[in-house]
Amino acid sequence: MQYPTPISQLIDSFMKLPGIGPKTAGRLAFYVLDMKEDDVLEFAKALVNAKRELTYCSVCHHITDTDPCYICQDKQRDRSVVCVVQDVKDVIAMEKMREFSGLYHVLHGAISPMDGIGPEDINVPDLLTRLQDEQIQEVIIATNPTIEGEATAMYISKLLKPTGMKVTRIAHGLPIGGDLEYADEVTLSKAIEGRREL
Amino acid sequence: MQYPTPISQLIDSFMKLPGIGPKTAGRLAFYVLDMKEDDVLEFAKALVNAKRELTYCSVCHHITDTDPCYICQDKQRDRSVVCVVQDVKDVIAMEKMREFSGLYHVLHGAISPMDGIGPEDINVPDLLTRLQDEQIQEVIIATNPTIEGEATAMYISKLLKPTGMKVTRIAHGLPIGGDLEYADEVTLSKAIEGRREL
Repeated sequence: MQYPTPISQLIDSFMKLPGIGPKTAGRLAFYVLDMKEDDVLEFAKALVNAKRELTYCSVCHHITDTDPCYICQDKQRDRSVVCVVQDVKDVIAMEKMREFSGLYHVLHGAISPMDGIGPEDINVPDLLTRLQDEQIQEVIIATNPTIEGEATAMYISKLLKPTGMKVTRIAHGLPIGGDLEYADEVTLSKAIEGRREL
Repeated sequence: MQYPTPISQLIDSFMKLPGIGPKTAGRLAFYVLDMKEDDVLEFAKALVNAKRELTYCSVCHHITDTDPCYICQDKQRDRSVVCVVQDVKDVIAMEKMREFSGLYHVLHGAISPMDGIGPEDINVPDLLTRLQDEQIQEVIIATNPTIEGEATAMYISKLLKPTGMKVTRIAHGLPIGGDLEYADEVTLSKAIEGRREL
């Protein structure tokens, strides 16, 4: 036995987290021992609360502690635009920008035939129902610029075209602050393809 | 509000840990949401248990959930040798080696006049009492090879010399697998100084 049981249990728990190996887990566990008891109790409570109180919004599938979520409930937002994203974290990224005031639709994944993930495994059918119900005029597809993300974007746009809905895709090109010299060919080709008149 | 309250509280808790910034904290918090509820409860319990059940051994000051600790209680160990280390983690490192079967004495620090830490602020007086009480024949000083660690080693050895106790210091030199070419001058000079006949 190298560690007393309580600390080896804590190390095991830390090791279940992504990117945390035995050395980091040990360091974190010993740090916890030196923390104030109140802080440790708060940490334990935060863990349980986050797991128990959070669910996914029944409308947009964003993470929330109320249903519908604070974005879907917000009367100030523009209800004519829905931004389709792959992940909850993408909503957070969009919200940080503070420039988009429409609604969201979180797919929780992307179409990936290689992994056996089809449109019905992510929240695509649900998006269709939602578009019938509401007064939505534009769907912005903001899935990741990866093979899966692009395939999902193509699939959704083809699905929505017959309904006459305006479907747009976020622009791909050089990131601001990036360097033309170091850009990969695909990004550069997308940047040329998406060029605009000044 | 970027995140629902339960998740931002969890992110704040993760951010209190060393080496975890807002991005990693966010990633860990979202990972917790996808964990099984049992695992999360176990994690929370491990945190509270580690904090509440662990204390320091009244004999050697190693971390323990019983008093005296499992090392001090172990009748199989060689009670004639005491290894003096700076930190609880040093005991773990020594135990991993599986070659030392003596007892330990954890100082919980090193003498550092710059930081106002004197011998009475770490467990030195306690070591003296312990050496009077028990049948100890050798004290191995395994403090770190830093200025503070060396100062502490010197201090303890001077303190124990009059009692006639055998006081030794662990060897300093090139680490196994190391490269002479890349060794710093001090390490190399210690390696030459500590050379042994073959």
